[in-house]
Amino acid sequence: MSKLWGGRFTKETNKLVEEFTASIEFDKRLVLYDIIGSIAHVKMLSNQKILSTKEKDELVQALQEVFEEAKQGKLEFNISDEDIHMNIERRIIELAGDTGKKLHTGRSRNDQVALDMQMFFLDKSGELAKKIVELLETFINLSKQHIYTYMPGFTHMQRAQPTTFSHHIMNYFWKFKRDLERILEFNLRANNMPLGSGAFAGTSFPISQEITANELNFSKVFDNSMDAVSSRDNALELLSILTSVMLNLSRLSEELVLWSSKEFNYIKLDEAFTTGSSIMPQKQNPDVAELIRGKTGRVIGNYSALATTCKALPMAYNKDFQEDKECVFDTVDTLEVSISLMNEMLQTMTVNKDVMKNSIYSDFSNATDVADYLTTLGIPFRIAHDITGKLVRNCQERKKLLNQITKEELSQLVPDLNSDSLDNLFTVLDPIECVNSRSSKGGPSPNIMREQINCALKELNDFSSKVQKLPKFL
Amino acid sequence: MSKLWGGRFTKETNKLVEEFTASIEFDKRLVLYDIIGSIAHVKMLSNQKILSTKEKDELVQALQEVFEEAKQGKLEFNISDEDIHMNIERRIIELAGDTGKKLHTGRSRNDQVALDMQMFFLDKSGELAKKIVELLETFINLSKQHIYTYMPGFTHMQRAQPTTFSHHIMNYFWKFKRDLERILEFNLRANNMPLGSGAFAGTSFPISQEITANELNFSKVFDNSMDAVSSRDNALELLSILTSVMLNLSRLSEELVLWSSKEFNYIKLDEAFTTGSSIMPQKQNPDVAELIRGKTGRVIGNYSALATTCKALPMAYNKDFQEDKECVFDTVDTLEVSISLMNEMLQTMTVNKDVMKNSIYSDFSNATDVADYLTTLGIPFRIAHDITGKLVRNCQERKKLLNQITKEELSQLVPDLNSDSLDNLFTVLDPIECVNSRSSKGGPSPNIMREQINCALKELNDFSSKVQKLPKFL
Amino acid sequence: MSKLWGGRFTKETNKLVEEFTASIEFDKRLVLYDIIGSIAHVKMLSNQKILSTKEKDELVQALQEVFEEAKQGKLEFNISDEDIHMNIERRIIELAGDTGKKLHTGRSRNDQVALDMQMFFLDKSGELAKKIVELLETFINLSKQHIYTYMPGFTHMQRAQPTTFSHHIMNYFWKFKRDLERILEFNLRANNMPLGSGAFAGTSFPISQEITANELNFSKVFDNSMDAVSSRDNALELLSILTSVMLNLSRLSEELVLWSSKEFNYIKLDEAFTTGSSIMPQKQNPDVAELIRGKTGRVIGNYSALATTCKALPMAYNKDFQEDKECVFDTVDTLEVSISLMNEMLQTMTVNKDVMKNSIYSDFSNATDVADYLTTLGIPFRIAHDITGKLVRNCQERKKLLNQITKEELSQLVPDLNSDSLDNLFTVLDPIECVNSRSSKGGPSPNIMREQINCALKELNDFSSKVQKLPKFL
Amino acid sequence: MSKLWGGRFTKETNKLVEEFTASIEFDKRLVLYDIIGSIAHVKMLSNQKILSTKEKDELVQALQEVFEEAKQGKLEFNISDEDIHMNIERRIIELAGDTGKKLHTGRSRNDQVALDMQMFFLDKSGELAKKIVELLETFINLSKQHIYTYMPGFTHMQRAQPTTFSHHIMNYFWKFKRDLERILEFNLRANNMPLGSGAFAGTSFPISQEITANELNFSKVFDNSMDAVSSRDNALELLSILTSVMLNLSRLSEELVLWSSKEFNYIKLDEAFTTGSSIMPQKQNPDVAELIRGKTGRVIGNYSALATTCKALPMAYNKDFQEDKECVFDTVDTLEVSISLMNEMLQTMTVNKDVMKNSIYSDFSNATDVADYLTTLGIPFRIAHDITGKLVRNCQERKKLLNQITKEELSQLVPDLNSDSLDNLFTVLDPIECVNSRSSKGGPSPNIMREQINCALKELNDFSSKVQKLPKFL
Repeated sequence: MSKLWGGRFTKETNKLVEEFTASIEFDKRLVLYDIIGSIAHVKMLSNQKILSTKEKDELVQALQEVFEEAKQGKLEFNISDEDIHMNIERRIIELAGDTGKKLHTGRSRNDQVALDMQMFFLDKSGELAKKIVELLETFINLSKQHIYTYMPGFTHMQRAQPTTFSHHIMNYFWKFKRDLERILEFNLRANNMPLGSGAFAGTSFPISQEITANELNFSKVFDNSMDAVSSRDNALELLSILTSVMLNLSRLSEELVLWSSKEFNYIKLDEAFTTGSSIMPQKQNPDVAELIRGKTGRVIGNYSALATTCKALPMAYNKDFQEDKECVFDTVDTLEVSISLMNEMLQTMTVNKDVMKNSIYSDFSNATDVADYLTTLGIPFRIAHDITGKLVRNCQERKKLLNQITKEELSQLVPDLNSDSLDNLFTVLDPIECVNSRSSKGGPSPNIMREQINCALKELNDFSSKVQKLPKFL
Repeated sequence: MSKLWGGRFTKETNKLVEEFTASIEFDKRLVLYDIIGSIAHVKMLSNQKILSTKEKDELVQALQEVFEEAKQGKLEFNISDEDIHMNIERRIIELAGDTGKKLHTGRSRNDQVALDMQMFFLDKSGELAKKIVELLETFINLSKQHIYTYMPGFTHMQRAQPTTFSHHIMNYFWKFKRDLERILEFNLRANNMPLGSGAFAGTSFPISQEITANELNFSKVFDNSMDAVSSRDNALELLSILTSVMLNLSRLSEELVLWSSKEFNYIKLDEAFTTGSSIMPQKQNPDVAELIRGKTGRVIGNYSALATTCKALPMAYNKDFQEDKECVFDTVDTLEVSISLMNEMLQTMTVNKDVMKNSIYSDFSNATDVADYLTTLGIPFRIAHDITGKLVRNCQERKKLLNQITKEELSQLVPDLNSDSLDNLFTVLDPIECVNSRSSKGGPSPNIMREQINCALKELNDFSSKVQKLPKFL
Repeated sequence: MSKLWGGRFTKETNKLVEEFTASIEFDKRLVLYDIIGSIAHVKMLSNQKILSTKEKDELVQALQEVFEEAKQGKLEFNISDEDIHMNIERRIIELAGDTGKKLHTGRSRNDQVALDMQMFFLDKSGELAKKIVELLETFINLSKQHIYTYMPGFTHMQRAQPTTFSHHIMNYFWKFKRDLERILEFNLRANNMPLGSGAFAGTSFPISQEITANELNFSKVFDNSMDAVSSRDNALELLSILTSVMLNLSRLSEELVLWSSKEFNYIKLDEAFTTGSSIMPQKQNPDVAELIRGKTGRVIGNYSALATTCKALPMAYNKDFQEDKECVFDTVDTLEVSISLMNEMLQTMTVNKDVMKNSIYSDFSNATDVADYLTTLGIPFRIAHDITGKLVRNCQERKKLLNQITKEELSQLVPDLNSDSLDNLFTVLDPIECVNSRSSKGGPSPNIMREQINCALKELNDFSSKVQKLPKFL
Repeated sequence: MSKLWGGRFTKETNKLVEEFTASIEFDKRLVLYDIIGSIAHVKMLSNQKILSTKEKDELVQALQEVFEEAKQGKLEFNISDEDIHMNIERRIIELAGDTGKKLHTGRSRNDQVALDMQMFFLDKSGELAKKIVELLETFINLSKQHIYTYMPGFTHMQRAQPTTFSHHIMNYFWKFKRDLERILEFNLRANNMPLGSGAFAGTSFPISQEITANELNFSKVFDNSMDAVSSRDNALELLSILTSVMLNLSRLSEELVLWSSKEFNYIKLDEAFTTGSSIMPQKQNPDVAELIRGKTGRVIGNYSALATTCKALPMAYNKDFQEDKECVFDTVDTLEVSISLMNEMLQTMTVNKDVMKNSIYSDFSNATDVADYLTTLGIPFRIAHDITGKLVRNCQERKKLLNQITKEELSQLVPDLNSDSLDNLFTVLDPIECVNSRSSKGGPSPNIMREQINCALKELNDFSSKVQKLPKFL
C-alpha cells in the first residue's frame, strides 16, 4: 500500500524496515484518544473557518463511526500505515473521501501523538490515584483492627523493639500517601494541550489552541511549539513516581513473603492468592508477593530505558521518541494490577496475632527500655546503654531473657537501684508495657495510634474527593 | 578505640569491617546539619524537663564549640567511630564529660541521619532552584536578542522547517521551568521533621517533636515513627528530578557540540570554555558540553543504584540505607556545576547569525508552507502534500531549490493555479516569510515570540520570589 | 479448570492472580524446546527402567503429535494452566491418558524451564553470531572499496586529522569482532544440561542426566542441582553481551544519522531505508538508524531490570525468576532485527566520496603533521606543537587554511627552516599525503589498510567456520 | 599555569571549567601505569631512532625518578594540568628540560589513557580472580565439614525439600566458578596494546607497536588505531562480570542475614563481623552482609552509567569517555573488599547444626518423597502428587506432621497399599532418608556430595594455577 506521505519517494519501503519502524502494534492502544483528539481538532478548524461546517460534519461523523468500530474491536490496523494516526486517517479517507484528506490540516503526527499521550497520562494517573486511595483505606482498616496486636519490630532483620501491627501497617499508609501526592501533582502538570504545535514550528493556519483545549477540557496550552513535541519529561516523571510506588510495594511484598514463611508464621495468605508446586505436594507459595517484588526490576528498568533513550537527543522530534510508549504502558499496567492484588491480599490474609505476641516475649527487644528507664534515674544514656548491654550479655550467657531474671540477680547486675526502682524496672521489662509507654508523636502506643489513624482518615477523605474531580477522557 | 555501643560485645570489630561499614568518609559532609539538629534536640529535651537547664547549657555550648571546629576544618574524624553522629558524640563527651553522655537521650542514629538528610535536601533543592532560575533568565535574555535570528529547525537531524533561535532557545525555558516546579514541590514535601522517631518506635521519654521542628523552622513532623526512619523516597524523588534536569542539559549540550562543529558552525564557544589537544595543535574542543552530556550516564546510574538498593528491604532500618548518601551527593554536586557552566557557556558564546540565516535559503524546509498554501486554495492537505512531494523530487532531480524555479516551471508542475496564486506561492517560498507567518500560539513568528517571552518573564518573577523564601539551614 | 498441582488446595485461585502469575503468554514461545526436552526425558526414564518401553512409546508419540500441533499453530494454550509446561502436560494427558500422568516423573518445572532456556540461549546465540559474521563481511567489503576514500576524522565532533572511510569502517569490524568472541564464549558456557535437578535437590529416582544430555547433544551436565535451578547468570551474561553489541550499533547509527544530514552529506541512505513526514513533503528521515539508537535504552534497561530482579534472592527458586524471560526475548529480538537492518543499510547506502574528500581540504586537520614534521627536524614535539598552534591561530585570523599560505609567509611564521624543509613542509600540508604517511600498525595509509583487511579476512573465516559448528535445536 | 596544549589559545581556561573537566583527582590512581607505559614508549622510540640513546637515557631516568616520587606519595598533582598524563609530562620537563618535551612524540593522550586502563584491567582482573579462588576454597572447606549437616531447602521462601548445608554451599561454588571463568576470558581479551594509535589515526613516525608491547609483555597489539582509542567495551565487560559476582554475593548475603535472624537461627556471625546499635543495647547487626547486599545497587548503577554514557557516541574520542574511570574504580574497589569480607565472614561464622537438623523434622518437606514412592508402586506421578497433597491437607487439619500419623491412619488415607509398602513409606518419611536417597548427579546425598567436592577440587586447582600465571604490571 503506498504511503500517505510518499509523494517525493520513488521506492517502496523495505518490508523489514516497515515492521521495525511501525508503532501500530503498540500505539493502537491509543486509538480512542487519537479519535477524540481529531474530533476536537476538526471542530476547532471549522470554528476558525479553515474547514466548512459541512466538511466538519462529515469528518466528525466519520470519526465517530471509526470510534465505534474501534470500541467494538472491528477497526483493522495495517502495519504499512505505520502508526495509529495514519491508520485512522486512511480509514477516514475511505469513509469521507476527499474531505477525509483535509483531516490532517494544520497539525502533524508529532503534536498528535503528544496529545494522545497527555490524555493517556491524565486518565491513567487518575486511575492509579484511585487505586492507591483504595489501598490507603485498607491500611487504615487493618490498622484499626490491630491497635492491640503486639509484634516485634525489626532493624537489620534483628529483633529490635516491640511495636504493634497497627503501627507497622500505618507506616505504609504514609509512604503511599506521599506517592499519591506526587501523582496528583503530576496530573496537574500533565494537563497541558500540545495540538497545534505542528511538527515543532506551529502553523500558519489561523488555528486556535484554546478552542481545542476547551473542547477537550484541558486547562492549559503549551507555550512553545517546539517544547510541545520534543519533551518526554512527563513520561519520565510518571515512570519515576510509579517506581517509587513499586519500591514501596516490593518492600511490603518482601514482608509478606517473610511473614508467611514457616520461620515467622505471622500471617497466612488466603489460598486464592497462593499457588502450588508441580512436584512438591505440600507447597503453598506466596507467588503474587514474589512476583510484585520481582517486577520491581522491570519497573526500574523501564525508567532507565527511557531516560537513556532521551539522553542527548537534539531538537525537535527524533524517531527515538517512539520508544516512550512500550515502557510507559508496561509500567502502568504492572502497577495497576500490582496495587489491586496487594490490596486484595491484605484484605484476605489472616493475621496470627498470638504468634506475633508470643514472639515479643522471647527476645531482648525490651533492652532499650531498660536503658531508658535507667536514664530517668539520672544515669547518662550512654552509660545506661553500656550497663544494659552488659546485662544482656550476662543473660545470654545464662540463657535467660531479661524478664526471666530475679530481682536479686538484677540488683547485683545493676547496682545502686533502690527497691522502688527495681520494681519499676520489672514493670518496664514487660514488652507490652514498653509499647504502651511509647507515646511520642508517631509512636506505637494505642492512644497515639488512634490519633494517627484519625489524622490519616482526614487526609484520606481529602485525597478521595480530589481524586474524584480529576479529568477523564475515557 | 572502644565503641560507644559496645556494651554487649566481647570482641573488637574486624579492621576491614570497620573500614567497609564506616560512613564517616562521606557523611562528614553532614557535620554542620548534625550539630544544628543536636542543638535543637537538646533545647527540646530541656524544655520537656528531660535535661536540666544547666545540662542544656553545657551541651549547647559544647555543640557550638564543635560547630566552630567543624566550620574551620579543625574537627578530626575517626573511622572507628563509624559515622558523623558517633564522631560528634565522642567529641561532645570529651568537652562536656558525663553530661555529654546524655546527648543521645530519646533519639537514635536512625532518626538523626534522617533529620540531617532532610536539612540537606531542603538546602540543596533551594540552591539548585536558584541556579535554575538563573539559567531561565539566560534563556530569556538570549531569546530577546534573537527574535529575528532565523535558523533551520530540525526533526530526525534533517532540515525540517525554518524557525528562529529565539524560538529554539525559549523551548528550553519551558522544559527547565517544569523541572523547577518539581523541585519546589519536592522542597515542600521534604519539609518534614523526623527527629524523635527513635530507632523506629518512638520513645517513652516525654519529648515534643513540635518543639524540635519549631526550633529548626520545619513546617511538619512525621506522622509515623517507623515511616520516618525507613523511607528513602525523598532521596529517590530528588534523584529523579535531577535526572530530568540533566537530560535536558544533555540535549542542550548535544546541540552545542553539533552547532560548534565545522559542519554546522552556528555558534562559537568562548575559548575559556573549550580545551585543546595534547597532539593536534589546531583543536578547540567543546569539552564542557561533552562532559555534561557524558555525566548524564552517572546521574541516571545513581538513580538506578539507589532504587535497586531500596528494592525489597523490610522494615525498619537496614544498613543498606547507608548507600543513599554517596549517590545523592554525587548527583547534587554534578548538577550544581553543570547548571552553572551551562549558564556561563550560553552567556559567553557567539551566535553566528549569518550562517544560520544563510542555511535556511539552501534547503527544502519551506515545502510544508507550499502544501499549506495549496490547502488554502481548497486542495485537501493530503493531496497538497503529495503534489509538493513530487515538486520537491522534481527540483532535486534538476538540482534546484524551490525558490529557484521559474513561474513557468511552477505553473507546469502545479497546474490549475491562477496568476495571483502563483504570485502568492512565490511569497510563501521565502523562508523568512514562512517563519513570520507561523503565528499560532507557541510558534516562532516575532510577534508571537514577544508574547511568549513576556509570559515567561512573568513566570520567572513568580518563581524567583518563591525561591527566595525557601528554608535555609546553612 | 482445576490445577494439576491442586491436591492440597480447597479454594480456586483468584482470577486476577491467575492472569498476573501465569507466564503462558510469553513462555509459549518455548513450546518446541519444552517438547524436545520432554522427549529426551522420557527416553532416559525408559532407559533407566523408570518407565516401560510401552509407556515411553506412548509418551513419545503423544509428544511428537503435540510438537506438530505446536508447529502448525494449532496447539491451544490456557491461562489457567499457568505456563508452557503445564499446558503441554495437560495436552499429553488428553492424548495418552494415565500414561500422560507419568510424564512429570523425576523432574520439576524448575529444572524444565532451566533446560528450555539453555536451549533457547544456545540457538539464539548461534543465530546472532551468524548475523554478526554477516555484518563483519559487510565491513570488510565496504573497507575494500574505500581504501582511497579520504575523509575527515573527528574527535570531540571537531575535525581532527584526515583518514579514510576504509579505516573508519574497519574500526567497527574489530569492535563487533570482540562481541562475537564474547558470544561464542557464552555459547560454550551455556552448553550445560540442567534437567534432573528437580525442584533443586535432585531426585531419588535412578535417573541419568548424562543420557538426557546425550539425547540432546549437550556437552556438560550441571554439577549441583541447586545451582542448576537457581542461577540466572547466563541470562544476564547474554544481556550484557547484547548490550555491548547494541552500544556499538548505536554509535554507528549516530554516525549514519550525522552523515546523512545536510550538514555532513557524506552518505545517502537508500530510500527503502528511510521514511517520510506526514506534514513536511520534502522529508526523508533516517528512521531505522534513529530507532536502533533509541532502542539502546531498552536494551540497557532490560539488563538493569533482570539484574535488579536477581538482587538478594535467596536459594533456591523464587517466582521472581519468571521475570527472566520477557527481557531476554525482547533484547534478543531487538538485536536480531537491528543487526540485519544495519547490515542492509550499509550495503545499500551511497557514499559521497567527493564530499568527503573536499572536506579534508577545508580545515586545519593537517596541523598535527606540521608539528610532527617539525619534530623530525629536531624540535621537541611539545615546542613544535606550540609553534603549530600559533601558526593555526595566525591563519585563522587571516581567514586562510594552512595550505593556502605562501612560502614566504611560512618562513616568517616558522623561522629557522631551510629551503628544503620548507618544501617538505608543503608536501606534508597536503591532507592526502598526511593520510598516506600514517603507516603505523592500525593506521589509515592504503598499504597498511590492505594488510589490516587481509588480517581481518582470516579472522572472519575462522569465526565463520566456528559459527557453523554451533549446536542447534530448532 | 599555561597549558601544554595552549599554542592556539589567547584566553585562559575558566577556573570552574578547569575543575569540572580535570580528571587528575581520580586518574592519578593510574600514575604508576602511566609511567611504566612511558618508559616502554621511550625505549621503542629510541630503538626506532626517533630518539637518540642519550635522549632515551635521560627520559628513562627522569621517568624512574618520578616513579619513585609517585610511589612515595611525593609527586604533586596540579588541577590546571588536567590529567595524569600532563602532570607527569610537566614534571618530566622540569627534570629533563627540552628532552622532556620530546616525551610526547608519536603518541596522544587518547592512546596513552587506553594503555593505562588496559594495564589496570589486567592487574585488577588478576587480583579479583585470586580473591575468587580463595572464596571457592572456603566453599569447599565448608562443604567438606557439612556433608551430614541436614537442613531445610527452600523455594519461594517456603520449606520445600530437605537438603544439606554442604549441598547448599557447594551451589555457590559453581556460581562463582562461572564468574571466575568470565574474568579469565576477559583478562585474555584485554591483553591488547593500544599505544601508538595516536589520537586515532596512528602516526607518521616509524614507530613499532610490537616493540612497545614486548617491553610491556602484552601479547597482542590493536589492529585498528581508531578502534584502540574509541572503544570502552572492555570496561563495560569488566563491569558486567563484576555485577554478576556482586549479584551472587548479594544472594549469599541475604541468606546470611536471614540465617542469623532469631527466626532462623541457623548461623551465628562472629562478633568481629557484626556491629551494635547506638540506642538498643542488645543489638548485634549483620552490617557487613547487609552492606554487600546494599552495594549491589551501586554496582548495577555503575554499569548502567557507563553504558548510558557510551550510547550513540560518534568516532573517535569524545570527552564523555573520561567518565569510564570513576565507575570502574568504584566497582573494582567494592568487589575487592566485598569478596574478602564475605570470605572471612564464612570462615568465622558458627553453623548451628542442631537447629538446622531439628527444622527438617518439623514440616512437610518430605511430601515429594511420598509422591515419588507412590510413583514407584506404579501410580502415575500426577496422581501420586494429588494423593499426597490431600494427605498433607488432612494432616494439617489435624495439626500433625506426615511422620506423626499412624500406620492405620495412613492405610486409610492412601488405600491399596500393602503392608510392605506401608513400611517402606514410613522409611521414606524420615527426612534424613529423603536426603540420603537423592543420589542423582548434583544431588545432596553424602556420596554424591563427596564426588561433587572432588570434582570441584580439581577445577579449583586448574584455576589456581591459571590465575598464578596471569600478567602483572604492579
